[in-house]
Amino acid sequence: MGRVTSRYRVLRLIDGVGMERPDSVAAEEPLEIRVAGHPLAVTMRTPGDDFDLARGFLVSEGVVSTASDVAAIRYCAGATAEGGNTYNVLDVVLGDGVAVPDPSIERNFFTTSSCGVCGKASLDAVRTVSRWTIANDPVRLSVATIATLPDRLRAAQRVFDRTGGLHAAALFDADGALLVVREDVGRHNAVDKVIGWALGEGRLPLTGTTLMVSGRASFELVQKAVMAGIPALTAVSAPSSLAVDLAREMGLTLVGFLRGTSMNVYSGAERIASAEEEHDEELDLCGGQRPAV
Amino acid sequence: MGRVTSRYRVLRLIDGVGMERPDSVAAEEPLEIRVAGHPLAVTMRTPGDDFDLARGFLVSEGVVSTASDVAAIRYCAGATAEGGNTYNVLDVVLGDGVAVPDPSIERNFFTTSSCGVCGKASLDAVRTVSRWTIANDPVRLSVATIATLPDRLRAAQRVFDRTGGLHAAALFDADGALLVVREDVGRHNAVDKVIGWALGEGRLPLTGTTLMVSGRASFELVQKAVMAGIPALTAVSAPSSLAVDLAREMGLTLVGFLRGTSMNVYSGAERIASAEEEHDEELDLCGGQRPAV
Repeated sequence: MGRVTSRYRVLRLIDGVGMERPDSVAAEEPLEIRVAGHPLAVTMRTPGDDFDLARGFLVSEGVVSTASDVAAIRYCAGATAEGGNTYNVLDVVLGDGVAVPDPSIERNFFTTSSCGVCGKASLDAVRTVSRWTIANDPVRLSVATIATLPDRLRAAQRVFDRTGGLHAAALFDADGALLVVREDVGRHNAVDKVIGWALGEGRLPLTGTTLMVSGRASFELVQKAVMAGIPALTAVSAPSSLAVDLAREMGLTLVGFLRGTSMNVYSGAERIASAEEEHDEELDLCGGQRPAV
Repeated sequence: MGRVTSRYRVLRLIDGVGMERPDSVAAEEPLEIRVAGHPLAVTMRTPGDDFDLARGFLVSEGVVSTASDVAAIRYCAGATAEGGNTYNVLDVVLGDGVAVPDPSIERNFFTTSSCGVCGKASLDAVRTVSRWTIANDPVRLSVATIATLPDRLRAAQRVFDRTGGLHAAALFDADGALLVVREDVGRHNAVDKVIGWALGEGRLPLTGTTLMVSGRASFELVQKAVMAGIPALTAVSAPSSLAVDLAREMGLTLVGFLRGTSMNVYSGAERIASAEEEHDEELDLCGGQRPAV
């Protein structure tokens, strides 16, 4: 559709001196997701991979969890008064026996708990809704592999290079091989597009994989990883308190401030091969001392 | 309430060698905003300035526009089954004659337009709902003043220094004096807290002010500026296409990639004093040539 970026004439000012020049900007358009013809949500997203975005959104919301839970997705041709197609409205037909979600605000995870709205209720709600148990995922991740993920993510970002304006999310296998990368003006959309791709490929639960995000790790992103059965989430920047709490509650490995060969492990450190183990495996002839930290 | 940050024991890995240490993480908790007792929205936010967040959210949604439109705000003491107060649920009592908003998804701006969901409809909706006309704001901004804003914002960020994990938004007057700064795990919440503070102070419309944000400029952030009558928005990072479109449609000055003394002006450049004018005013004895770009 060619709408991933838009060109604008802008005034570039350097040291107070200006010149007009063209600039590429990341496209942002609303997407309305309908289920069985009823509006469920509107999100501001970068056009492209919209069906994956819808699939991933429905995984995150606990509506679907296997490829067959989605029978069909189509853009609504009659979205405008003139009957035109904006490619900004799509309708999802669910598979047999899949319950249509309630679009009212009461469907929200947080208001269903007996303790009212609080962080603990948010954690309980995810545990109740999630179909996968990631705490048992036996995958082991080496520090050396984790350290390569930010560069691999950055290398795979095509639109960012042109606009500097997109969040990215990518899925890697345990050896650090890239499975899929998606970019979007919304960080949650980028993750939903990744998860929706995996649902369509019949890959849920995403056992043994690592989700890497270009920014911070919020509660919402950890929730999405849990709902897709992803055992590890790594982020370039900081996590929030509730992200750490949910990761610990669900047994997800959460790494933040992943820069170069340094990182903070907030949860699930047992999946990460320690320096000693790596030395044992790879450098067992060295026998040197641990470097000072 | 002391919940702006939380402390965790984390595993810090540097070059594969790990050590446990304490780490401060930005707090994230759900906030349910009720109006006249009915749930309107749930947002994941950093606790603190919650009443301002609610006020600003209602400004952004077009529900209120003056201080007297909000009669009272209180935390709901009975939010838990045991009657306890989580400080995560608050109820807004609107002033006389202020219409209670419809919490259904149909209230959404985008679905009210005849053209269905598209970028143009999003722009039209904001123009229809906004009470202020910022295109006529006569404020002039000097390049030198704009260039100081990122450092002034950064200096005012208290929590970021401890956590590295918060978005910030600040309001400045035309001379670059800081009026208010707010931090939050959600970028839209930081802006709502700024606008809600201004509403409570009886300062709307925010004529002559500049809103500075620490990250990117999305449609939603431009929308919030417009709804508060703010004539200029400056961002450290990139804008989206719909942010540029809305800024141009409403006559808002939009600056992106504001770093050091360089910036891109995407809209409303007429408010920014050109290099020549500044030279005329400040350096009228120099008479030199424009430096090459």
